[in-house]
Amino acid sequence: MLAASASLLNVKVVILDVGDHAPAKQIVAPLGPELAHVDGSFADPEKIRELASKVDVLTVEIEHVDATTLEEVRAASQGKQLAVHPSPSTIQIIQDKYRQKQHLASHGLPVSDFVAVESSIESISSVAEKLGLPLMLKSRTMAYDGRGNFVLRDIQQAQQAIDFLGNRPLYAEKWVPFSKEVAVMVVRSANGEVQSYPVVETVHKNNICHLVFAPLRSRDASLSQRARSIAENAIKTFSGAGVFGVEMFLMEDDSIFINEIAPRPHNSGHYTIEACETSQYENHLRAILSLPLGSTALKVPSSVMLNLIGYSSSMDEITKTANVALSIPGASIHLYGKSECRKGRKMGHITIVAESDLQLRTRLRPLLQSLPGSTPEEVDSYAPAFPARGPGFSDPNPLVGIIMGSDSDLPVMLPAARILDQFNIPYELTIVSAHRTPDRLVEYARSASARGLRSIIAGAGGAAHLPGMVAAMTALPVIGVPVKGSSLDGVDSLHSIVQMPRGIPVATVAINNGMNAGLLAVRILSAGIPRLIDAMDNYMKNMEQEVLGKVQKLEEVGWENYQVKRT
Amino acid sequence: MLAASASLLNVKVVILDVGDHAPAKQIVAPLGPELAHVDGSFADPEKIRELASKVDVLTVEIEHVDATTLEEVRAASQGKQLAVHPSPSTIQIIQDKYRQKQHLASHGLPVSDFVAVESSIESISSVAEKLGLPLMLKSRTMAYDGRGNFVLRDIQQAQQAIDFLGNRPLYAEKWVPFSKEVAVMVVRSANGEVQSYPVVETVHKNNICHLVFAPLRSRDASLSQRARSIAENAIKTFSGAGVFGVEMFLMEDDSIFINEIAPRPHNSGHYTIEACETSQYENHLRAILSLPLGSTALKVPSSVMLNLIGYSSSMDEITKTANVALSIPGASIHLYGKSECRKGRKMGHITIVAESDLQLRTRLRPLLQSLPGSTPEEVDSYAPAFPARGPGFSDPNPLVGIIMGSDSDLPVMLPAARILDQFNIPYELTIVSAHRTPDRLVEYARSASARGLRSIIAGAGGAAHLPGMVAAMTALPVIGVPVKGSSLDGVDSLHSIVQMPRGIPVATVAINNGMNAGLLAVRILSAGIPRLIDAMDNYMKNMEQEVLGKVQKLEEVGWENYQVKRT
Repeated sequence: MLAASASLLNVKVVILDVGDHAPAKQIVAPLGPELAHVDGSFADPEKIRELASKVDVLTVEIEHVDATTLEEVRAASQGKQLAVHPSPSTIQIIQDKYRQKQHLASHGLPVSDFVAVESSIESISSVAEKLGLPLMLKSRTMAYDGRGNFVLRDIQQAQQAIDFLGNRPLYAEKWVPFSKEVAVMVVRSANGEVQSYPVVETVHKNNICHLVFAPLRSRDASLSQRARSIAENAIKTFSGAGVFGVEMFLMEDDSIFINEIAPRPHNSGHYTIEACETSQYENHLRAILSLPLGSTALKVPSSVMLNLIGYSSSMDEITKTANVALSIPGASIHLYGKSECRKGRKMGHITIVAESDLQLRTRLRPLLQSLPGSTPEEVDSYAPAFPARGPGFSDPNPLVGIIMGSDSDLPVMLPAARILDQFNIPYELTIVSAHRTPDRLVEYARSASARGLRSIIAGAGGAAHLPGMVAAMTALPVIGVPVKGSSLDGVDSLHSIVQMPRGIPVATVAINNGMNAGLLAVRILSAGIPRLIDAMDNYMKNMEQEVLGKVQKLEEVGWENYQVKRT
Repeated sequence: MLAASASLLNVKVVILDVGDHAPAKQIVAPLGPELAHVDGSFADPEKIRELASKVDVLTVEIEHVDATTLEEVRAASQGKQLAVHPSPSTIQIIQDKYRQKQHLASHGLPVSDFVAVESSIESISSVAEKLGLPLMLKSRTMAYDGRGNFVLRDIQQAQQAIDFLGNRPLYAEKWVPFSKEVAVMVVRSANGEVQSYPVVETVHKNNICHLVFAPLRSRDASLSQRARSIAENAIKTFSGAGVFGVEMFLMEDDSIFINEIAPRPHNSGHYTIEACETSQYENHLRAILSLPLGSTALKVPSSVMLNLIGYSSSMDEITKTANVALSIPGASIHLYGKSECRKGRKMGHITIVAESDLQLRTRLRPLLQSLPGSTPEEVDSYAPAFPARGPGFSDPNPLVGIIMGSDSDLPVMLPAARILDQFNIPYELTIVSAHRTPDRLVEYARSASARGLRSIIAGAGGAAHLPGMVAAMTALPVIGVPVKGSSLDGVDSLHSIVQMPRGIPVATVAINNGMNAGLLAVRILSAGIPRLIDAMDNYMKNMEQEVLGKVQKLEEVGWENYQVKRT
């Protein structure tokens, strides 16, 4: 993928990898005898030197390289000015997860407690006493996709852990009972400028990255900014240029720990190819070539990446899922051209983009169903059917929130819900009373946008404060429905809702007209979902036809026989 | 670009082109001695036969191929089942522009008048008499990018035309005084299913495609549907699978003529790589491989493609523009890796995506300025500065329309305009009176969405019909501002605007509160431009700070000395 980005900029590339048909070599034709690709391992000093002799800038796509040789070729090249990115010292720190944690902790970055441990029952027991059980035992080097990790749940397992992890140097991490895993890609230029991509939610399966949702939705409006700034601060502490993946744990109390850092384009950034203004690959290139960094902004509302992991030695399962993806709008298939399939090997990935989280998860559903061994529960948890709980229940990925001050307002608000049903727009419906549940009001309004809502419909009667107070605590467009009470014919509610002071608007509709509130929400959403314009046009044409039908009926039966339907 | 798409699907590709370093060959490493790329011309029968012997499916990226040989290899392959797409007969019809026009006319598709003409002064004179002057003389074959075209403005130029066009078979076309050139990419599966991409506006310079804007904006809401259906119907008449570019002329009266058809991925479809759910290249592959066709929907609100045309034998001018593009958010650079630059040669292209037409044109401006020989007038016409005419004048790419029933409403509506200025949102401001200019009302409301507006703010007083009548004729969200008249304190306007019948909502704000109408428009736009959420959050924090400042001042000076500012 890095090579594909390079070709768009006329950047010539020489690859070091094993074999003549390694994936990257398939899409970079050799540049001629002088600049032929190198056949060998990225851990072989001789091969690294050979590659270094052919290029001006050398970068890595995996951190398990021979960083000592990288530093040696960089130092030896003073005349030629070979640039190596990220800097070999950065790779060395990151290669050793214990050193990585020490480095982060020493810069005041949030990591869970960790200590060095020896491969002995005594040492493990003493650490377990200190950090508690379960305890995460990790190999300091060459650990990825769960390899080199052991979860010690009982001190009796110590010998088993030693056998599993072998004689490699180890360290221990306090168990982190995270609520979610999140990640941020950060690009760093050689002069230390950093820029971060949106926060994503990552889902692992068998310790391998399975799904990546972008952007992250949360109840905590500050979370995204906090996670990005932790990630950016972490990457500022390293030297050299390039893209870095920062994997983090999100706790129940919304605090964040850094889990680990990858000094290269990362699986959690694959979605950027289709979903962002500049992909992580192009930004890696820009960074290591000292070109201006590209925009990291999302260009679509919602996206997800699904890894295609080998299930056996056959490509059949991969092909099956790819074939399903061919029929899913917004799905882009990336097969890596690896020569053989193996269980647990990353053979490709699929990215889906969508206008909303609901559309995204609807598009994702058949893909998850096509995976070997997928269970209905798993599919439902990441890609529920729509409507998830049947009519009359809130959708898990709402674009519109319908709230009312009292359950007695429900008859007025139901037509709004029915309109959204008719336009297949996901929504939630609940009670939020400004006067009786003020804390709930604050929490609801403040979290609305971060949770993914794009508009709120609020109904209230009498001294109808709900719509205006919600509008005061969210930047979203708020639609107010004045509900007619027992006195004043609803004029009290109307004036309470519409006569907002300068600075905070409420989009007010007619008294008791929940239906128009639903229709206004559809029109508002069309600012981000253009196909709703056509849908609304059709709705309006149908209304027109309905009235024209009545015109005809009036002609046919005469007005003396015409029955007026009252609704 | 086709080869790059193929690699994502693990589709193996063999290329026929001249030289070992032809662009496509740079990104498809040879598959081994048996399946080596072919070095030669796509017009050389021997080379076509060699390529055909190596593949299961053969396609072309240029129509000036030897179609006879293509048909021959296809027919000869009955055992092997070689598929050739599009079918050689389709290529033959399209290669000969006169036959192409006859074919289209015979299927009832709209083309301008045309007749065959001989290379003689007599024949040309007689045709000029019939079709009028100026007259377009065209070579029937091997004509593209304006080569093989001669505009006969005076009958005296007949000999000059004959000399210019040489001895090639000619035909003449009636002059088409088009207002715009538009194009539609259509993908056709082998079984005849067609799907079209959005209509784009194409801008030519020196007869070469210069800019492509997607989607097309127009005053005529039906235009897009009409153009797509003409393009789809045209492609249904041909045989074989693949992507086709349909170039059309749009006339002042909104009628449409087909100009010509390209039987392959086309320059006017390059934008699809970044801007659509499936690119024209991937859809061409899907079509010729009999895979399901991909979604042709836009995934971004606005996009433009700029061709990078060689200006001299040096790449310097191209490099200069590409360097400018590196600093433009949303710009993707595609350099083709062609070995030498020539004046008029397509060396690459740049696609920009954006959240709105204004942002798009603002991003495009520095690119156009960087082109050799660009004039300020040219730059201004395609990428005006913002605000285009200074404060107090309508923007040419408005997202919001501010309209009022009478110029006396201006003081109430100005605060809405000032809010949009503050948020850098492009808008137009004008007078539309429901009662005094009803036709203008209809035209304004019906064209609003096709012109690119996403919301309308309408202010009116008394029997305030404007907001509701506009809402009845557009699917956009309409914000109503009740203007206080000389009697009833504005309650008449408020009730006229807010009490809309079920089916047609108006988002009503407080009496005389144009400012809140502006703020509501910003909130509505945030449904499609998420960064406006942050901008509105900041705005609200500033308001909060302002009030907190007053709290402090009250403490400091005491309420007896506090001066209340009235606004």
